[in-house]
Amino acid sequence: MGKKINLLMFSGEYDKALAALIIANSAREMEVDVTIFFAFWGLFLLRSPETMTLEDKTTYEKMFGMMTPKGPGELPLSKMNFSGLGKEMLLEMMEDDEAPKLKDFLNGAIKKGVRFYGCKLSMEIMGIKKEELIPELEVVDAKTYLKDAMESDMQLFI
Amino acid sequence: MGKKINLLMFSGEYDKALAALIIANSAREMEVDVTIFFAFWGLFLLRSPETMTLEDKTTYEKMFGMMTPKGPGELPLSKMNFSGLGKEMLLEMMEDDEAPKLKDFLNGAIKKGVRFYGCKLSMEIMGIKKEELIPELEVVDAKTYLKDAMESDMQLFI
Amino acid sequence: MGKKINLLMFSGEYDKALAALIIANSAREMEVDVTIFFAFWGLFLLRSPETMTLEDKTTYEKMFGMMTPKGPGELPLSKMNFSGLGKEMLLEMMEDDEAPKLKDFLNGAIKKGVRFYGCKLSMEIMGIKKEELIPELEVVDAKTYLKDAMESDMQLFI
Repeated sequence: MGKKINLLMFSGEYDKALAALIIANSAREMEVDVTIFFAFWGLFLLRSPETMTLEDKTTYEKMFGMMTPKGPGELPLSKMNFSGLGKEMLLEMMEDDEAPKLKDFLNGAIKKGVRFYGCKLSMEIMGIKKEELIPELEVVDAKTYLKDAMESDMQLFI
Repeated sequence: MGKKINLLMFSGEYDKALAALIIANSAREMEVDVTIFFAFWGLFLLRSPETMTLEDKTTYEKMFGMMTPKGPGELPLSKMNFSGLGKEMLLEMMEDDEAPKLKDFLNGAIKKGVRFYGCKLSMEIMGIKKEELIPELEVVDAKTYLKDAMESDMQLFI
Repeated sequence: MGKKINLLMFSGEYDKALAALIIANSAREMEVDVTIFFAFWGLFLLRSPETMTLEDKTTYEKMFGMMTPKGPGELPLSKMNFSGLGKEMLLEMMEDDEAPKLKDFLNGAIKKGVRFYGCKLSMEIMGIKKEELIPELEVVDAKTYLKDAMESDMQLFI
């Protein structure tokens, strides 16, 4: 039987999301099954300015939704962000090395068949709707995540 | 034989502690054995203003103890804390969804039989005494943690 | 067959590096095989002011290299760093307990035979050269990391 890995993407930061997606894509190229469970801040990676909505949301949900990143391009760095300057530097260095951007790694993961799970409770609390996120996302509860994770050969909390 | 998971709770933040305890409680409801090893900042989740003491501590330990969170209610968010405003927003959104608070998840974990391990070395360095933490805590060294973790089906560093 | 653990050291912080190295050293004392894969900020733990170079680097790489920590002594705390004051307090408390410093744990890990892997892609992007890091480091790609991690009994992302 094939190998399987499970990543819990909790952080909403550019560099950590990059790490998670590089691991996920490399694993898929090795024919390893990959599930990423997006919870809390991790969900912001899967948003997009185009699908964002303010309808049927409480005031707090609207405020929270507007203050937080809308997709891969808006995620800050986990360290040395310096209001965006540190991130600019990292992006320039990545370009010099012709490394793909976070958005490309995300599209790669979708194409390569990574399974995308979204945390139901986080989405309810933050007022994020399924249609605001990528269509490949399946909304699941903590037990579904745990079942998948416990059946995997490797689990990381990122 | 039953399944078993092991979490290393290193961070002392409201949202990450929430994630750890939701995983732990969900696992217990699935009859999975759960150990949480609290180290460094993670230990602050188990403190309480009522049991805090300054006796038999060095000046640095006293200062450190007073500057750091005393229990679940005082933990900051890992992101967007904004001196407490972001956390207030999250708490309001949780209340709107009738989601339990961190304190309730902690009590749930105790009732459901999660095993609580405290890192001996962290407690010695920070001058935290056993009687300042929840009575269910067992103080253990890194090797006892490792033995438990390596016997588990899944391990996370949170 | 013996047990094996794999740590992904992503963070470049004093307290998290301490946690990783205490786990690694304890595991080696239990005759467990240990690999640490250093990626992104984690690589700064393995730098040294003596071996740092600015040659053959782009302007961004030079700036980035000078702004980031050069070895264990320069890593900040993940929380409460307070421009170094919080770290000073932690170091004083560690000294009071006669706990070794991060540098000593790193040397211990080298002597005890921990395997050091460095992330090729991170090094290319940030312009870090092999000769700037500890000589024990082997530069590998994400797939080599994954192979080692999936063969291990336990994996952590730190």
